[in-house]
Amino acid sequence: MKQSKLTVLKIGGQLLDDKTARQQALQAFCKIEGPKILVHGGGQKASQLSEQLGIKPKMVKGRRVTDAATLQIVTMVYAGLLNKTLVAELQAMGQNALGLSGADLDVIRAEKRKDKSIDYGFAGDIQQVQTKTLEVLLQQNICPVFCSITHDGQEQLLNTNADTIATELAIALSQSYQTQLLFCFEKAGVLANPADEQSLILKINPQHFREYQNSGVISGGMLPKLSNAFRALNQNVHKVFIRGLNHQGTEVCLA
Amino acid sequence: MKQSKLTVLKIGGQLLDDKTARQQALQAFCKIEGPKILVHGGGQKASQLSEQLGIKPKMVKGRRVTDAATLQIVTMVYAGLLNKTLVAELQAMGQNALGLSGADLDVIRAEKRKDKSIDYGFAGDIQQVQTKTLEVLLQQNICPVFCSITHDGQEQLLNTNADTIATELAIALSQSYQTQLLFCFEKAGVLANPADEQSLILKINPQHFREYQNSGVISGGMLPKLSNAFRALNQNVHKVFIRGLNHQGTEVCLA
Repeated sequence: MKQSKLTVLKIGGQLLDDKTARQQALQAFCKIEGPKILVHGGGQKASQLSEQLGIKPKMVKGRRVTDAATLQIVTMVYAGLLNKTLVAELQAMGQNALGLSGADLDVIRAEKRKDKSIDYGFAGDIQQVQTKTLEVLLQQNICPVFCSITHDGQEQLLNTNADTIATELAIALSQSYQTQLLFCFEKAGVLANPADEQSLILKINPQHFREYQNSGVISGGMLPKLSNAFRALNQNVHKVFIRGLNHQGTEVCLA
Repeated sequence: MKQSKLTVLKIGGQLLDDKTARQQALQAFCKIEGPKILVHGGGQKASQLSEQLGIKPKMVKGRRVTDAATLQIVTMVYAGLLNKTLVAELQAMGQNALGLSGADLDVIRAEKRKDKSIDYGFAGDIQQVQTKTLEVLLQQNICPVFCSITHDGQEQLLNTNADTIATELAIALSQSYQTQLLFCFEKAGVLANPADEQSLILKINPQHFREYQNSGVISGGMLPKLSNAFRALNQNVHKVFIRGLNHQGTEVCLA
């Protein structure tokens, strides 16, 4: 049944802020054959706008704490400015793109994060992904472009980690497609030494991951990315890579 | 061939800024039977954000002059905050909404306004409306929600009048549907005396319009709205009303 291949590509970080890097990322995305979905993070613009408006960005454990004012800002920047900029740039490249939040077509429902130790504010943890309409769109050669805003189905928008959105989309679509999940960023892949692009780790499995984590080789934002990658593989996503634009990068695998 | 009825409803002004009014507008929209499209203007939020950021909104002949900074602001507010708020609120009402700019699915292409006397900046005049994918969506009971941002197909986003977007969508979709176009706002309809809600004009044709215009009864923002209304009727839109939420309002007609 799963003859069709599908690619879910997540871009974030410095690939979004700089126009040249962004265009290279989009060109690489356009070259991918078959149905595909782009998921984008936020870049620096939301933090810049917060500062311009006198709202200090607050981070806990690498995640943005989303108060009501910050939710407005990320909705404006992610769903508005970044999403429509990417859609217009893809259209100019001949790719029929459709910008989406999780609220659009009710694709991604989340719930406000329940964490007794930290109040993350309007941060959403994904509860449900509906792929039926997405599949109709993909069949029409339409390329969905997701920002990292979801909703709870009761009119509340929620800020949701873009890596997690890409992961959950890849998992849900693996019921109908042979899915590969690509986390693209400004580095070549998972590096044994973050300062040395030559230290690329070509393959990483759960055992390596534990070892690298224990020795401190892998830390920070790479930890949740790898957790997402393993979760995807455990839920029938065919292949997962953490990579730069023009590199094979690091293949994440279970064995 | 044109058995199906379609409604294009435009909401703007005070109906967007106040949550109670907005919810009433959305409930009225949900009650409309058959395929339907919502188009929304901008409300006060874009001007507020401009002021907070120290950018003074500039208006010429009732239209916002869109410099690069203002284009970023309206893209954030219209395509981001307002559009996703409306989509999430419609989803909570059980309406499967999909937020769109003109760049999404390449539905609305515009060109940067050519006006030798005034430089409107990144203001777009609509050149082309593609309804093919829209019709697929409408057949799936999906309700498109358009913000007033379009693109030129060469990656430039453009700020475009929401009344005009509603009008052009209604005209383009009149090839497949019997279309009614509703301009909803905070007044009961076209008023002979703007201060008196009882002075509602029930019907207005081009001859009345010229008379009202000459006598100064109709002026300001109502002039382009009525020009759009007559243009729609001249291009096969079935019916056009300018109205409040719970009023029949003013029917615009050709004879």
